[in-house]
Amino acid sequence: MADPACERLALIGVGLIGSSIARAARQFGAARHVAVMDSSQEVVGRAGELGLADVATQDYAQAVRGADLVIVCTPVGACGDVAQSLAPHLEKGAVLSDVGSVKGAVVAQMTPHLTEPARFIPAHPIAGTEFSGPDAGFATLFQNRWCILTPPENADGAAVEKLTKFWMRLGANVETMSVAHHDAVLALTSHLPHLIAYNIVGTADDFGDETRSEVIKFSASGFRDFTRIAASDPIMWRDIFLANKDAVLQMLGRFNEDLSVLQRMIRRNDGQGLLEFFSRTRDIRRSIVEQGQDTAAPDFGRRAEGR
Amino acid sequence: MADPACERLALIGVGLIGSSIARAARQFGAARHVAVMDSSQEVVGRAGELGLADVATQDYAQAVRGADLVIVCTPVGACGDVAQSLAPHLEKGAVLSDVGSVKGAVVAQMTPHLTEPARFIPAHPIAGTEFSGPDAGFATLFQNRWCILTPPENADGAAVEKLTKFWMRLGANVETMSVAHHDAVLALTSHLPHLIAYNIVGTADDFGDETRSEVIKFSASGFRDFTRIAASDPIMWRDIFLANKDAVLQMLGRFNEDLSVLQRMIRRNDGQGLLEFFSRTRDIRRSIVEQGQDTAAPDFGRRAEGR
Ligand SMILES: NC(=O)c1ccc[n+]([C@@H]2O[C@H](COP(=O)([O-])OP(=O)(O)OC[C@H]3O[C@@H](n4cnc5c(N)ncnc54)[C@H](OP(=O)(O)O)[C@@H]3O)[C@@H](O)[C@H]2O)c1
Ligand SMILES: NC(=O)c1ccc[n+]([C@@H]2O[C@H](COP(=O)([O-])OP(=O)(O)OC[C@H]3O[C@@H](n4cnc5c(N)ncnc54)[C@H](OP(=O)(O)O)[C@@H]3O)[C@@H](O)[C@H]2O)c1
Repeated sequence: MADPACERLALIGVGLIGSSIARAARQFGAARHVAVMDSSQEVVGRAGELGLADVATQDYAQAVRGADLVIVCTPVGACGDVAQSLAPHLEKGAVLSDVGSVKGAVVAQMTPHLTEPARFIPAHPIAGTEFSGPDAGFATLFQNRWCILTPPENADGAAVEKLTKFWMRLGANVETMSVAHHDAVLALTSHLPHLIAYNIVGTADDFGDETRSEVIKFSASGFRDFTRIAASDPIMWRDIFLANKDAVLQMLGRFNEDLSVLQRMIRRNDGQGLLEFFSRTRDIRRSIVEQGQDTAAPDFGRRAEGR
Repeated sequence: MADPACERLALIGVGLIGSSIARAARQFGAARHVAVMDSSQEVVGRAGELGLADVATQDYAQAVRGADLVIVCTPVGACGDVAQSLAPHLEKGAVLSDVGSVKGAVVAQMTPHLTEPARFIPAHPIAGTEFSGPDAGFATLFQNRWCILTPPENADGAAVEKLTKFWMRLGANVETMSVAHHDAVLALTSHLPHLIAYNIVGTADDFGDETRSEVIKFSASGFRDFTRIAASDPIMWRDIFLANKDAVLQMLGRFNEDLSVLQRMIRRNDGQGLLEFFSRTRDIRRSIVEQGQDTAAPDFGRRAEGR
């Protein structure tokens, strides 16, 4: 392996993201040695069966020992405990990072346990699917996706450089921003959409059995798109909403305001207002497709089984 | 062509749906002769270039003359005018139908112009994409999708049978229900999801340029799913919300209620409540996939360009 981004990589938590990093690190030569650790014996066993890493263990010390890059890939709510457990075993000079979907709460939970906080460089790869667990991961998950770093003010420059090189090796584009800005932007692009999707699927689920079965039958008319992200891991999303409460509630406030405006237009038969509203939202879709962040194919290019 | 569902088919409006029906009718032998009519000269020209039909015209009389099945495929808001224009030219005994996403308003607009209302069998195929126009159509659009018929109480049995046979020939499953029930179910499965999607994309669009460009960059975190349906045709959707106002406002009321509950859970750090809420929405997704109404592949199986 010529010039890997790190020598010994340790991943704490081997779900969708952890196992994707493990696969990608090997496939794209980002680390010479990969150790994975998970609190679940079943997950560790599965990681072994899948041959995801050189070492798979339930032991923090074993995973972290000798590692020059350690990435925490557990749900956000577990990050504090994880930091406390692994901190005593971290090598001097090791770079520590995470992949949490919220940054403020993760930094607040992890930093107090660290002896070298300047080498803790929080990160968030903007890539995922609705599935979780070690079987769900794949090596190309991060290709042409963004990975956001939120280094502390006094960050160790070499640590930032190392992590940047690592993510670029996995195929990601790297962007740096403040913790607060990250949490505000993601509240809008990710947390609010998930909340809305969970909510609309919940509304449908509240109806009786007959309506529910019709909702399923006729879901191709729009509803099914929401069910995909509303099938995401409940623990992960509970943690995200608790950890990014303020930004989420703020975005939700704006969403509600805008929805009242649309509601009013419908109530008053304001066809012109609706037409204008519905006309301006196409540009964003076009830009997303142009920037390679989604497919241009109709209907996401999906084909249902029967087709 | 052995045993077609109709002899001479006339389609009024040759957009996504009209052109898909034209293609499918030929490919699956559902009609011996196909005439298409559109108010737009450009669309008629394009239908000719694409070879969608035996006849492509801007003239109602020419399209409808001799047809034993006439299907109106214009936006919902145009259906009344269309009915008035074509009624004088309808053959005695011809079956008339439509594909509108709302049924109550379409029936109210069209029926007064008809001399044989018992042979007007409203229909709604639950299939589409975010694109419109004659180039967007394809013959397999209706395969393994539902088509809902809402026949009037005094419907001509032979007319219902003929239309049913037609849609089944196109690959659809046919279900019959009342107009009111259709409009309530679709308000939930289709109209509310589109309203919410338009709204969330609108909320993002309201932010300044910098945020907007970040929303686009980081859209893979959830937001991009909403932009697809929010890129649907503005005229079609204006018409739908005006035509199905009451049912949409009612569903929106329930959605808002439920969203307040989620909002409250977040504000009060009710992790248990959130976890329970997020756990019950997975079943609906599973059923949709099992019934062949969506793909089981992660992330809709899409691959963005860069991947
Ligand atoms: N999924 C996405 O789309 C996505 C995208 C970007 C970032 N993220 C972030 O990535 C992180 C992981 O998400 P994921 O989708 O990979 O989740 P996942 O598939 O559920 O995997 C998380 C793994 O961490 C393990 N774990 C939990 N607590 C632990 C602890 N204290 N010590 C060690 N391991 C522990 C879990 O074990 P158990 O099964 O025993 O709980 C599980 O195997 C989250 O912070 C999430 O916000 C996710
Ligand atoms: N798209 C979907 O996903 C979907 C799914 C199921 C049902 N539907 C329903 O299907 C209908 C058509 O939708 P679509 O997506 O096919 O729309 P579309 O692609 O916009 O096509 C509609 C066509 O009708 C033409 N038209 C408008 N007024 C007319 C008139 N008075 N006489 C003749 N032609 C006229 C339009 O011409 P101009 O270009 O000149 O306006 C256009 O070519 C709507 O009622 C919709 O609710 C749509």
